[in-house]
Amino acid sequence: MPLLVMKFGGTSVANIDRIRRAAKRVGVEVAKGYDVIVIVSAMAGRTNELVGWVEEISPFYDAREYDAVVASGENVTAGLMALILQEMDVPARSWQGWQVPVRTTSTHSAARIEEIPTDNITAKFTEGMRVAVIAGFQGLSPEGRITTLGRGGSDTTAVAFAAAFGAERCDIYTDVDGVYTTDPRVCDKARKLDRIAFEEMLELASLGAKVLQTRSVELAMRYNVTLRVLSSFGELSDTAGTLVCSEEEIMESNVVNGIAFSRDEAKMTLISVADRPGIAAAIFGPLSEAGVNVDMIIQNISEEGRTDMTFSCPTTQVTRAQKALEEAKSRGEINFRELVADTAVAKISAVGIGMRSQSGVAAKMFRTLSDEGINIKVIATSEIKISVLIDRKYMELAVQALHDAFGLDQAT
Amino acid sequence: MPLLVMKFGGTSVANIDRIRRAAKRVGVEVAKGYDVIVIVSAMAGRTNELVGWVEEISPFYDAREYDAVVASGENVTAGLMALILQEMDVPARSWQGWQVPVRTTSTHSAARIEEIPTDNITAKFTEGMRVAVIAGFQGLSPEGRITTLGRGGSDTTAVAFAAAFGAERCDIYTDVDGVYTTDPRVCDKARKLDRIAFEEMLELASLGAKVLQTRSVELAMRYNVTLRVLSSFGELSDTAGTLVCSEEEIMESNVVNGIAFSRDEAKMTLISVADRPGIAAAIFGPLSEAGVNVDMIIQNISEEGRTDMTFSCPTTQVTRAQKALEEAKSRGEINFRELVADTAVAKISAVGIGMRSQSGVAAKMFRTLSDEGINIKVIATSEIKISVLIDRKYMELAVQALHDAFGLDQAT
Repeated sequence: MPLLVMKFGGTSVANIDRIRRAAKRVGVEVAKGYDVIVIVSAMAGRTNELVGWVEEISPFYDAREYDAVVASGENVTAGLMALILQEMDVPARSWQGWQVPVRTTSTHSAARIEEIPTDNITAKFTEGMRVAVIAGFQGLSPEGRITTLGRGGSDTTAVAFAAAFGAERCDIYTDVDGVYTTDPRVCDKARKLDRIAFEEMLELASLGAKVLQTRSVELAMRYNVTLRVLSSFGELSDTAGTLVCSEEEIMESNVVNGIAFSRDEAKMTLISVADRPGIAAAIFGPLSEAGVNVDMIIQNISEEGRTDMTFSCPTTQVTRAQKALEEAKSRGEINFRELVADTAVAKISAVGIGMRSQSGVAAKMFRTLSDEGINIKVIATSEIKISVLIDRKYMELAVQALHDAFGLDQAT
Repeated sequence: MPLLVMKFGGTSVANIDRIRRAAKRVGVEVAKGYDVIVIVSAMAGRTNELVGWVEEISPFYDAREYDAVVASGENVTAGLMALILQEMDVPARSWQGWQVPVRTTSTHSAARIEEIPTDNITAKFTEGMRVAVIAGFQGLSPEGRITTLGRGGSDTTAVAFAAAFGAERCDIYTDVDGVYTTDPRVCDKARKLDRIAFEEMLELASLGAKVLQTRSVELAMRYNVTLRVLSSFGELSDTAGTLVCSEEEIMESNVVNGIAFSRDEAKMTLISVADRPGIAAAIFGPLSEAGVNVDMIIQNISEEGRTDMTFSCPTTQVTRAQKALEEAKSRGEINFRELVADTAVAKISAVGIGMRSQSGVAAKMFRTLSDEGINIKVIATSEIKISVLIDRKYMELAVQALHDAFGLDQAT
């Protein structure tokens, strides 16, 4: 029988009534003739409660015990979902991560899935079971301990099961009805996309459009799993939501498909750094060790053997970055005159696979911002993305202007 | 190193502060040189919440899914306890039932422990771990599904671990400070016992003194595990609580060691039953099949081939018993004129291993009740127990009078 994977996030299973509603959607697919693998998150709020208890005990907790505690939330939902499906006369049973087992690395709290054996579940489908309910977000380490995949990890569980079982599609039910050209709270002309390419979704996800865990999109791209993001609260429909798929499945596309932004960026500048071979490594090595997520990097033209080095990182990591750099300076590894942190910036990005084949996108973006009197502080580009740092106070204006300029309110 | 098992019930681990307090007690034993196996229940209220969800879904739930859901409460506490011990610099880790694995039968929601392999945990003790924290109440079926042992099952987990690992003692921390001669709420002269024999504890437990799960006492008796029942809220002391141990370890004992009572008993009488061989089986077979827990049984002297048959059962099962008997009658399996249910009775029992060697206990009990003008409706005796049914309105008076008569307010 054809197989679907359906994943329900925390708000979609927040209480018994909502689990019932989710189960009804599963029942509809079963009635169509699909075998279904359902991946569930913990009931909304549960994981936060469990994490709160662990953090109340100690900020320096044993990640193995943390994982054992927080994984329990998904186990509860899996059992309840199986019970509701049975009550609807749909043959179903639950599996916890260790029962499958979802084999992962030993990197607790951020484990990666290495293998999902399919024999056991496939055998149950053959015996007449129609729905396998899997506790998401968790797995089993080679040492036999419970692991978790990091926040949002149930998305990754879903894609991994879809890949392992060769599912026709992986539907991600969430509290938004799809992927938008930009955040509708910032730009009221934002439009839901019918389709988006994996690469674009990856850029949007990593830029803060928190619809899907980045890793799940990477995995879907690698195994070519067609993802659908849709709301558990909307009407039942085959065309609901947004399809995240390979470029080939998208007939025609805008040059730019989304305007992403991030409010919590900081611009850090090291002024008058001694310019010598290896200086970049000497600067960014200590930052990496301190766990600072450096995003954009710009090195200005040097004069008289000295240069200015600018990079961006999340505002929450500014103190950590300052500490790491001052320490490297005091160890004599680097030399700079001053470290300037500008925490009043925002990052705006235009994303689209069409950029690959069409030139002039950067020029259009810069002109649009210039026409609005917005000064660009830093520019970084990739094959399908152009990002700029600007004053944070212009963020909404910039998003709206770019959304208009690239015609994102109109479908192709 | 000598080994202790310490079990903490739901109220003893109701929140992080209480788990901390429990962990401190564990730390004291570790400091004395013990390796410790800690068995934890779910945080107070959690199991009820989980059971509530399952029952909200369906009264006829799949017990395998029920077990998967409710076992999660203990998993949370086990991880949190391990984290707190680590924070106290006590080397500790948690095990869920399936990780040990605690091998049980497949009787979901009422599984029995069949085997506890010790290698894995013993190896960790050898490597320097000082505390193994075990999620109580749960195990693994031969089919690889999660099982639970029934309410109060963590007591049984504790005793089973104490037996498997040859622990010096099994301390059951609860919200009462020991076993009393009777319920202090009914008789203010009730006295805490320093020691009580397994057999006596079994009678008291099954009679409704809900300090320990009956099965855990049976198991302790079979493997001669010394149990100590004590409060997690009292002072730390080696002589706290009540020791439940073999008869041989009790030097001197009162003839009667406890007065137990049960409020929710009903007396059922089948009037004018056709008296023939096999009639008892014909009556009690259908009751057993209907799940009625028959306690006392009395058959009156028969006259002209007919007899009266009286039995007692919990008041909550009266309707079920009536239905089963009327159906057996309509099927022609039994014949009686009338079925009379008296739901206004209470059961009072005097329990003591001293009865075995001393006569006159029954006579003293009957005389005491007679002196108070209390009519005895049914009598049943065993080697170490005498039980009577009386009008419920005299229950407290009877308990107090018997407590006095047998001198239970004074230690031997």
